[in-house]
Amino acid sequence: MVILIQCKDQVGLVAAISTLMAKEQINITSMREHVDTVACRFFVRLVVNGCSNIPLLETRLKEVLPADAEINVHPLPAKKIAVLVTKDHHCLSDILIRNHFKTLGATVQCVIGNHKNLEEISTRFNIPFHFISHENIDKDIFENELLSSIAKYEIHYLVLAKFMRILSPSFIEKAAVPIINIHHSFLPAFIGANPYRQAYERGVKLIGATAHFVTNQLDEGPIIAQQIIPVDHSFTSADMMKAGKEIETAVMAKGLQLVFEERILLYKNKTVVFE
Amino acid sequence: MVILIQCKDQVGLVAAISTLMAKEQINITSMREHVDTVACRFFVRLVVNGCSNIPLLETRLKEVLPADAEINVHPLPAKKIAVLVTKDHHCLSDILIRNHFKTLGATVQCVIGNHKNLEEISTRFNIPFHFISHENIDKDIFENELLSSIAKYEIHYLVLAKFMRILSPSFIEKAAVPIINIHHSFLPAFIGANPYRQAYERGVKLIGATAHFVTNQLDEGPIIAQQIIPVDHSFTSADMMKAGKEIETAVMAKGLQLVFEERILLYKNKTVVFE
Amino acid sequence: MVILIQCKDQVGLVAAISTLMAKEQINITSMREHVDTVACRFFVRLVVNGCSNIPLLETRLKEVLPADAEINVHPLPAKKIAVLVTKDHHCLSDILIRNHFKTLGATVQCVIGNHKNLEEISTRFNIPFHFISHENIDKDIFENELLSSIAKYEIHYLVLAKFMRILSPSFIEKAAVPIINIHHSFLPAFIGANPYRQAYERGVKLIGATAHFVTNQLDEGPIIAQQIIPVDHSFTSADMMKAGKEIETAVMAKGLQLVFEERILLYKNKTVVFE
Amino acid sequence: MVILIQCKDQVGLVAAISTLMAKEQINITSMREHVDTVACRFFVRLVVNGCSNIPLLETRLKEVLPADAEINVHPLPAKKIAVLVTKDHHCLSDILIRNHFKTLGATVQCVIGNHKNLEEISTRFNIPFHFISHENIDKDIFENELLSSIAKYEIHYLVLAKFMRILSPSFIEKAAVPIINIHHSFLPAFIGANPYRQAYERGVKLIGATAHFVTNQLDEGPIIAQQIIPVDHSFTSADMMKAGKEIETAVMAKGLQLVFEERILLYKNKTVVFE
Repeated sequence: MVILIQCKDQVGLVAAISTLMAKEQINITSMREHVDTVACRFFVRLVVNGCSNIPLLETRLKEVLPADAEINVHPLPAKKIAVLVTKDHHCLSDILIRNHFKTLGATVQCVIGNHKNLEEISTRFNIPFHFISHENIDKDIFENELLSSIAKYEIHYLVLAKFMRILSPSFIEKAAVPIINIHHSFLPAFIGANPYRQAYERGVKLIGATAHFVTNQLDEGPIIAQQIIPVDHSFTSADMMKAGKEIETAVMAKGLQLVFEERILLYKNKTVVFE
Repeated sequence: MVILIQCKDQVGLVAAISTLMAKEQINITSMREHVDTVACRFFVRLVVNGCSNIPLLETRLKEVLPADAEINVHPLPAKKIAVLVTKDHHCLSDILIRNHFKTLGATVQCVIGNHKNLEEISTRFNIPFHFISHENIDKDIFENELLSSIAKYEIHYLVLAKFMRILSPSFIEKAAVPIINIHHSFLPAFIGANPYRQAYERGVKLIGATAHFVTNQLDEGPIIAQQIIPVDHSFTSADMMKAGKEIETAVMAKGLQLVFEERILLYKNKTVVFE
Repeated sequence: MVILIQCKDQVGLVAAISTLMAKEQINITSMREHVDTVACRFFVRLVVNGCSNIPLLETRLKEVLPADAEINVHPLPAKKIAVLVTKDHHCLSDILIRNHFKTLGATVQCVIGNHKNLEEISTRFNIPFHFISHENIDKDIFENELLSSIAKYEIHYLVLAKFMRILSPSFIEKAAVPIINIHHSFLPAFIGANPYRQAYERGVKLIGATAHFVTNQLDEGPIIAQQIIPVDHSFTSADMMKAGKEIETAVMAKGLQLVFEERILLYKNKTVVFE
Repeated sequence: MVILIQCKDQVGLVAAISTLMAKEQINITSMREHVDTVACRFFVRLVVNGCSNIPLLETRLKEVLPADAEINVHPLPAKKIAVLVTKDHHCLSDILIRNHFKTLGATVQCVIGNHKNLEEISTRFNIPFHFISHENIDKDIFENELLSSIAKYEIHYLVLAKFMRILSPSFIEKAAVPIINIHHSFLPAFIGANPYRQAYERGVKLIGATAHFVTNQLDEGPIIAQQIIPVDHSFTSADMMKAGKEIETAVMAKGLQLVFEERILLYKNKTVVFE
């Protein structure tokens, strides 16, 4: 079981938490703590066992912690997710394989695509695929159809696996679950469209990818994970895109693992990641 | 001996060059070739031995190559450089050590600083240090003083080793040698001032450094080399700066090595780097 | 079309090849050359177009090259492969996905497993799966059954995608195609069984994986590609194995790409890899 | 101030420590904890401030912790070190530069070389250099001379910065301080002499370096840090050595930083490193 806590920093927080655990005969098998001394904020992640009554534990924790404490007690059992895609298969395929072999840390409830390309691979793995075109309809209607499809499933996260439409603040609010996106660049470099074209034109020697939470600001949400690979002058923009797909797949897998294992706390626009 | 050639691409270029070499009894020990199919441009780097008459070889090469060919025949013997610095010692120290042990591939003629901090380490290695303050004088006067100091030495390259003043297009033109800068970010992310502060605010998970040639456009010149290191939430902006210094030193050393070994061809705003 | 050539080094080889190409009106779009000065051996890889008669080109090349030259002219069209597996799915899944989306650079003819675990995923992608148990039979009988299965298909390469049986020199000879293995360590560290257990016991800070050709000597064949990922004290041997699977998948994908794109020349027990 | 504690794992350890700190009005600014569940051992590193009486704190900690607890309370002020070298300058130069600019986290008391090569650079930085030849004398006499030289200084660590003689168990015992070595390979690959020659012969695609504590077993002590760089077929064994020097310098710098910042706990033959 994982417990994530954040609150204003003060003396005695670790003592309060660990004393409570000892008293309740709950065994702490892992504990990671971080104090953001600039923001004066305390973050902790505990992995514990021996807790039989979660609501009671939460109540007890509230009693010993400051009033502003955000406490999340997560039994690790699997999250449910929906995946939004466009045409590129590489991130979705990786998710479907891990889902199939039960190494994803979540179960895929459905795939929703604004093109039909990825219906075949989804149904090959017996995952429902919903085709919702963005063409010839207003954006808010398109987004409402997305929301309706998602609403058929009880999901905890929405994963944008190379979904190439920009979602409105209204959608993000209504979705009401954390949304994870894989961005095809080393953010904040090359924000926006055609990052590989931009990278090629600039003659960079590394290209990257970024997994991040989606907020109202395009490409500006909290960063979860980033990775890069070297490129050189022999890479055309198409070669960069091809190489980029490998790193996009890797960074998405890493990002999802961190999210599903409850290793991330959010504060302001940044992440605390207890790997 | 290194030969760098670039010209419009056409059939038979490698044949023309290599046939000439065979005829002249010059042995090619290494050959790297690249065709930019978008720009339709041919680039080649040869390492050869057995050439006793460089001007004659250049004439012969001109005869067998297209009229637009840029041909550079470099005997490898050491380049001479001047180093511009401000307060940070790490890049300069690395250069001075390599210069001292003759592994730099160039010889440092002088160090010029707009602060006095690094006079001590320069003179410790018997390298002349010129202090030229930028304070209380016009930028063009400051730059003219820099140029006067540099003019005392016969140099082939100017290295900005954490020199924190922006040089004008006029200076760059008058310097009349290639200028290599180390930029404290993974360009084009975090252009401009305080990149580590920007990186901290954005919550990135990697920070980088870039060695590039200086052109009129600030931070926009051809990129030579880039490297990154991972960071996490526990890094303050000061920690990022400290970690960044390590990567700045490494990427500058790499960039200088590539330049001094004549491994780089420039075209438009990009580099072809034959590592 | 890709041409790979190796022979004893001598003056004029590049001239001979490139002059021939120009005469035959064959356009060289990429050329990479390497001379092993220790072994006095010349290696070259050309990508060309405009050749309509491959046997004639091979004859012409033989005429202008030394008698010992090994010349391989490869039309790039897809290689055919068989994949040998045991229980772990990660490498096979990656191969099946790339095969399905035609980005593998080869087509998978069949999967052969000494356990039944991976029959389901293979048949899900409509790839024939042959179950051949190694239990309760002599090794030579087991290997003959493998060879019989493989013989049903016309294959160019055999890929060991986490196949956990050691193949005899006799098998390797009879298979008569190059065999590519993914080894779960940074060879030559941790040769043999249980490398992750060994890595854990030794307390290493990096773990790696190696793609290599299989020769008679266990784990001693020519290395194609190697990659690593950092680990720390918090990794159990099971965690290392889990992290290792990610890097195994990545390095196998990279290795296969290099092989299928004809980027590798073999000499003695080493590879020349023109990336 | 840094506190390092290790003991047999049991419930309530974090509570005991953190409650004590709160009671003593000592503020914990950073805390990293690790439980080795295989060895059933607890490790913790705290950074604290507000402690005015270290011996009293140690006494109090002993009272609340199990009898077997190893408790180290380190005021961070600078460690003193001696550096042993042979001919290669790169690691020593890096140490001397950091020492000079007070970024090493330790102060260099002396350099001892079994060759005279590095006397010049040491004295250039005003560091005493002792030349002790290993030639024409018995190993135990040579080692006794080393020990005599070291004994003139009060040192906390001995750093082998490319010191190419193997030290006997007797020396290690008599030195009575932790000894840190930089090994020119990715241990445990290429143990022993000429690792770059071995790496070249094997045709590896990565080379590495390892910082480790020295124990009686050659190259078998607890690993502190490891890093690698990619190489390819174009690297001669001399090129590998040259590239290796860069990575040796980097990994030594990293290893020393971890040691001097008291980020390492030792248990059996492994390290717990709280970066």
